[in-house]
Amino acid sequence: MNVLAPHKAAPGTDRARSAALPVIEIFGPTVQGEGPDMGRPAYFVRFGGCDFRCTWCDSMHAVDPAIVRATAQRLEPAEIRSQLGALQDGPDLVVLSGGNPALLELGQLVDLLHNEGFEVAVETQGSRWKPWLARVDRLVVSPKGPSSGMDSDTNRRSLTSFLQRAEDEGAPPVLKAVIFDEADLEHARWLALTWPTLTLHLSTGTDIGLGEQETLRQLLARLRWLCETVALDRTLRHAQVGTQQHVLAWGTRRGV
Amino acid sequence: MNVLAPHKAAPGTDRARSAALPVIEIFGPTVQGEGPDMGRPAYFVRFGGCDFRCTWCDSMHAVDPAIVRATAQRLEPAEIRSQLGALQDGPDLVVLSGGNPALLELGQLVDLLHNEGFEVAVETQGSRWKPWLARVDRLVVSPKGPSSGMDSDTNRRSLTSFLQRAEDEGAPPVLKAVIFDEADLEHARWLALTWPTLTLHLSTGTDIGLGEQETLRQLLARLRWLCETVALDRTLRHAQVGTQQHVLAWGTRRGV
Repeated sequence: MNVLAPHKAAPGTDRARSAALPVIEIFGPTVQGEGPDMGRPAYFVRFGGCDFRCTWCDSMHAVDPAIVRATAQRLEPAEIRSQLGALQDGPDLVVLSGGNPALLELGQLVDLLHNEGFEVAVETQGSRWKPWLARVDRLVVSPKGPSSGMDSDTNRRSLTSFLQRAEDEGAPPVLKAVIFDEADLEHARWLALTWPTLTLHLSTGTDIGLGEQETLRQLLARLRWLCETVALDRTLRHAQVGTQQHVLAWGTRRGV
Repeated sequence: MNVLAPHKAAPGTDRARSAALPVIEIFGPTVQGEGPDMGRPAYFVRFGGCDFRCTWCDSMHAVDPAIVRATAQRLEPAEIRSQLGALQDGPDLVVLSGGNPALLELGQLVDLLHNEGFEVAVETQGSRWKPWLARVDRLVVSPKGPSSGMDSDTNRRSLTSFLQRAEDEGAPPVLKAVIFDEADLEHARWLALTWPTLTLHLSTGTDIGLGEQETLRQLLARLRWLCETVALDRTLRHAQVGTQQHVLAWGTRRGV
């Protein structure tokens, strides 16, 4: 809704910007659309770069290297902070998203946001651990099911190692699985059986490129199917079925 | 979806039924549609009788005394339990709803369900305290805003007393406010300011008697308005905006 005006980096400062971060977009105040903070007012900072190539990615502008190179601003943590609203006026939750923000060194940004009174949530697929992840307030790990094309043995091993590390660091994550079909649901059952103590959110996926009405029709049909299937599924009885509320409210537009 | 077959009470057992409870419907397995357990597989037990008469009540079959008298079954706690599925097959969450279940003595039922391994959630408007409320796993209090016609000084005093009692008993509730309009939102701001430590869910209300398409259109428009308003509202920055997910999945049909 309120996409804040992009910050323009001053020319000729590249040498001083070794710690600068590739920012695709900063938007908000808006409302988190899915997962454990669904419905909560928040700002989003979307970083460029991803180690996955999910077939249904809804943020390719933060993934495709050519697009990222052409469009990402290089911002210091303080510059990112300066683009968020004054704390007394708006949300106090900042969601760091991507791409995969865990490819970057965001510890300095997390500490800065904490010092200013913000809570920090991170969304990552759980492929690469970074020590700063143990310091955020909410670590949302969204493993990718078969329909993404990324559910390989290698990625399951990376996820297992990531989640073990998170537990060792005393930073239990919340799992969020995007569900397009029965194969994704079977993947979610594997998550539920393998990490029974972690909260598991199931979120209906949205196909890319559909018109507004068809997107809505598909989302509602998928939600109904998912509710009716999970209600009867003992393995998933502690999962929570949800949908992409931002798509319900605003469709598939960017920056909301 | 799967409305379990109603239990038929044997005739001539009325004298032994002094502890029997007026049950309007038992349904499930389904998925909780709103509030802190939104999306979680659950059974619902809806009890008859209510001390409120909200203009937008979506469960008048559990409120109108004539309908309740004519349709409620009188069931013992063990009979209610017997209508829920075998624990190994389905949800382990039972939601006690109404009407206002806090008008009844449900302590024996709560203990029975706990002994059998169920979690118990209760939904009440917070008008009358009962000691058994301190023993449930999730106490969801849904105070009624101005659009309900029930936002009087008297009811605010009852709510204040109820929430104080819950806190004294070490049973902090979760607040869920149904929002139809700006006046309801102002009421929600009062809740947020008065009980800043309680989690506050905001759930879009659904008008009664609309057709399926109009219900959906209204719900989505209200959700968008609510998201855009709350995102910019400092008082509500810790609230969580949601909708009635069961209406999205199944429309306004009963028993889902």
